[in-house]
Amino acid sequence: MAMMETPLNTWLLFGHAPRYFPDTEVATRFPDGHVHRYTYADFARRAQQLMHALDALGLEPGERVATLAWNSYRHLEAYWGVPCTGRVLHTLNLRLSPEDLTYVIRHADDRAILVDPDLLPLLEKVHARGGLEGVRHLVVLGDTVPETTLPGVSAYEELIAGRPSAYPPRDIDEIAPLGLCYTSGTTGRPKGVVYTHRSTVLHAIAASSQAAMAIGPGDCVLPVVPMFHANAWGMPYTATPYGAKQVFSSGPLDPAALVELMAAERVTVAAGVPTIWMSVADEIEARGGLPELRHLLCGGARPPRSLIERYRRDFGIPLIQVWGMTETSPLASLAWPKERMRDWDEQRITDAVRTRAGLPLPGVQMDIRDEEGNSVAWDGESMGDLLVRGPWVANSYLGDEGAAGFTEDGWFRTGDIAIGSPHGYVVIADRAKDLIKSGGEWISSVDMESAVMALPEVAEAAVIAVPDDRWQERPLICVATRPGSTVTLDRIRDHLERSGFARWQLPDRIEVMEAIPRTGVGKFDKKALRARFDS
Amino acid sequence: MAMMETPLNTWLLFGHAPRYFPDTEVATRFPDGHVHRYTYADFARRAQQLMHALDALGLEPGERVATLAWNSYRHLEAYWGVPCTGRVLHTLNLRLSPEDLTYVIRHADDRAILVDPDLLPLLEKVHARGGLEGVRHLVVLGDTVPETTLPGVSAYEELIAGRPSAYPPRDIDEIAPLGLCYTSGTTGRPKGVVYTHRSTVLHAIAASSQAAMAIGPGDCVLPVVPMFHANAWGMPYTATPYGAKQVFSSGPLDPAALVELMAAERVTVAAGVPTIWMSVADEIEARGGLPELRHLLCGGARPPRSLIERYRRDFGIPLIQVWGMTETSPLASLAWPKERMRDWDEQRITDAVRTRAGLPLPGVQMDIRDEEGNSVAWDGESMGDLLVRGPWVANSYLGDEGAAGFTEDGWFRTGDIAIGSPHGYVVIADRAKDLIKSGGEWISSVDMESAVMALPEVAEAAVIAVPDDRWQERPLICVATRPGSTVTLDRIRDHLERSGFARWQLPDRIEVMEAIPRTGVGKFDKKALRARFDS
Repeated sequence: MAMMETPLNTWLLFGHAPRYFPDTEVATRFPDGHVHRYTYADFARRAQQLMHALDALGLEPGERVATLAWNSYRHLEAYWGVPCTGRVLHTLNLRLSPEDLTYVIRHADDRAILVDPDLLPLLEKVHARGGLEGVRHLVVLGDTVPETTLPGVSAYEELIAGRPSAYPPRDIDEIAPLGLCYTSGTTGRPKGVVYTHRSTVLHAIAASSQAAMAIGPGDCVLPVVPMFHANAWGMPYTATPYGAKQVFSSGPLDPAALVELMAAERVTVAAGVPTIWMSVADEIEARGGLPELRHLLCGGARPPRSLIERYRRDFGIPLIQVWGMTETSPLASLAWPKERMRDWDEQRITDAVRTRAGLPLPGVQMDIRDEEGNSVAWDGESMGDLLVRGPWVANSYLGDEGAAGFTEDGWFRTGDIAIGSPHGYVVIADRAKDLIKSGGEWISSVDMESAVMALPEVAEAAVIAVPDDRWQERPLICVATRPGSTVTLDRIRDHLERSGFARWQLPDRIEVMEAIPRTGVGKFDKKALRARFDS
Repeated sequence: MAMMETPLNTWLLFGHAPRYFPDTEVATRFPDGHVHRYTYADFARRAQQLMHALDALGLEPGERVATLAWNSYRHLEAYWGVPCTGRVLHTLNLRLSPEDLTYVIRHADDRAILVDPDLLPLLEKVHARGGLEGVRHLVVLGDTVPETTLPGVSAYEELIAGRPSAYPPRDIDEIAPLGLCYTSGTTGRPKGVVYTHRSTVLHAIAASSQAAMAIGPGDCVLPVVPMFHANAWGMPYTATPYGAKQVFSSGPLDPAALVELMAAERVTVAAGVPTIWMSVADEIEARGGLPELRHLLCGGARPPRSLIERYRRDFGIPLIQVWGMTETSPLASLAWPKERMRDWDEQRITDAVRTRAGLPLPGVQMDIRDEEGNSVAWDGESMGDLLVRGPWVANSYLGDEGAAGFTEDGWFRTGDIAIGSPHGYVVIADRAKDLIKSGGEWISSVDMESAVMALPEVAEAAVIAVPDDRWQERPLICVATRPGSTVTLDRIRDHLERSGFARWQLPDRIEVMEAIPRTGVGKFDKKALRARFDS
């Protein structure tokens, strides 16, 4: 007997927002331009009505309740309402093909699905493939049920209406499952990561840190990253108890509307993948900046240096790199500058900090190992496989698939190739499978992309390996140019050579396209590019 | 199987500073003006040498290793070195009387004591009272052992010298004891609070939050609050893994030296009791401010409004109130403004936020109960006993003493009388025992002190209850004036009436003294005042 053994479950955090932040707002912009707005007091009442509704549906503890939904206040209600009843929230990736969705829903053994109205046609395709055989309840996130071929669909608002708005806290074991998210599956079938109450509560607390997202009660946050993707980087689980105002942009990305929303709601911190911040930069410039934005969190892929510099120089906005994966909840490292760098100029900080994947968060441990499995020195040069461990890192996939991803001594193999800097920052050289092996030496596709995107005529660039008889692999540059611009292979080779690339590393093939294809979470889809050009 | 069940013990955090912040500094100023300076790489090597030294002393796991020491880098080494070996760090309060120290050392069953050289005479007095009978090792925190009547004293530097600087991590259960701290005991004997690895790790992570101390890798922190007092509010356990530079001021407070140290080391965040910030305000003014200081954390007692206003107005430094107790690790609430208040002027924020004890940190739950034990509304008026609970709140005292301090339904009774504001901020009206009951109504001693200290001629003021035949109790004002000033009872009554106090609340007795006596942790010592004037 010493300190209280309070379980780390969602009930520890759920009561905070309604009690201490009852009039703080949650704002959701819908694609038609309408902004829905309510307070945390409203949120908590409705989330508790949802808890009663889930009980009324007869779902058992531990059963999966899925969402197939854009970011919105109703999705936020499910984030808290589902786990607070002891059930498991499964966030379905709406960018998956009907085939993959069918696989995932069946694999997860989902019992109920909460679906946005415009995604019903997608679910109909899943139904046609037999994907909904185990699903007993379909709930459309709206007032009424639109026309659909799906049987027995009910409306969310009707489901929760009239139910009590207070729900007695449950004594949930902290290692009970809370959520389920499938990796986007760039290789093989998607694999399920099961979050526990403990891992999510720890992550929620750690994420508010000055070393992490740095969000507190004075903030207004906007996760552009989807709520179906690694819990929107955990932002909703942090912002809610810490009392930050939350803003959601529902539906597909509309750069002009997004920037207008950020300005109108006075967002202080937003989070998204680099391609998002590329898409909206011109809009921010046209508006003359976003003076209330304190910093942008940028992860999922390495942002090109030119993007970091543009935001800093033209808008005065630091772009803070975030590194993590679905398997790491996801925050593992963030690139904040150190006390020792207080007098450094921006150029030096960009070199040493902003172009890196960050300092590991306390709680997360990292190791970089060579091919023999020995830890390499953090000397800024030695490269190896990045391994992580910690209380919010997965130790397995659902059904014990992909066991090779976990070492016998308790680490998760990220599949990233990394370098540790002497300053303690981790540099992601590449995904293991994206690294180009040419003539026995390695070329980082990410480094090359970053350099190519610094060219003014280039809008986007992705580099993939193509087989080569003599050199084993050679880099191929896929480029989308800015409107009215053109670019040649020579121009790119010349620029890369001046940027420090060796002659043997320079690409000898270019493919110009209208836009680089993207994955469901907005990253460049190299799998699709390889399929197109590898042959 | 889902997420790693990594235990929350000190080893989860200890490796962070040397690996990711090897060249970040720890600076300690000693009373002779000398500043010792080393890096986290040095710190970690020496802390691990200490771990080996503790093993060599033959101490068993779970045995208590005490410190009787000022803030310093060696004290920091003990903070980590002792718990990482599975032993328990007992921070002795050097302001206690030899009698109380004797009681505490025997009660805790301390096996070893690490003591600062200038505190050996105090320990000699404890020895004379038989307080060291169970203590097997006395280690003086220095290079050599000064002259002393104590037998068998060794020197810290000799003890750790030559030992290996790497220590294999131990697999410590997260609910194993990590530390022990006695409450300062304003009533009755001091009682021991036992911190666990889990509670301290959770607190360390939560304390770095933007809603808490808001410290990260870019910061330089100075805990003016002693390391023997509730772990210096947990600052060393947070700053070390988060990579903030740490600055310690060793020895008794010297206002001019402290301000000089803050300026020279470029401190961004400092923590201390209100009397500290009162003492140094003139020094800060003489220096024209401290431009690199971002905010001051102020707790242990409610700071007078005039102090808050002076720091804000004259120095541009927000004074952030912190509320907590030894039993709460200690951070329970901090007074940060909310998003809804972004457009408020400073006056309004001072009223609603800065003069309050804060918003509870996520993880900490609070309840205010009336005399019948019913929760009262957070309406800005209803007053009651403040109860708290959470994973870093004590559920008992060592030896199960003071069991009345814990409710059957799992809450800790703080002994504070509080009001909850509709905005969610808690207001500490008074310590239950300091509230003045006059003619059946309550007078808050803290409110009255805060008002009196706004008078320019008053340096410090403390209000206590004195027995009264007719009214039961009446307020007595104890005042220390500024140099060259005088103050009268009439002047104070007049000022209080204009400040909104009712006529029946006005004091009818004043005692002018050179300085208000203080407790071991720098708060006004009302127990001493009552002993002097109650008769």
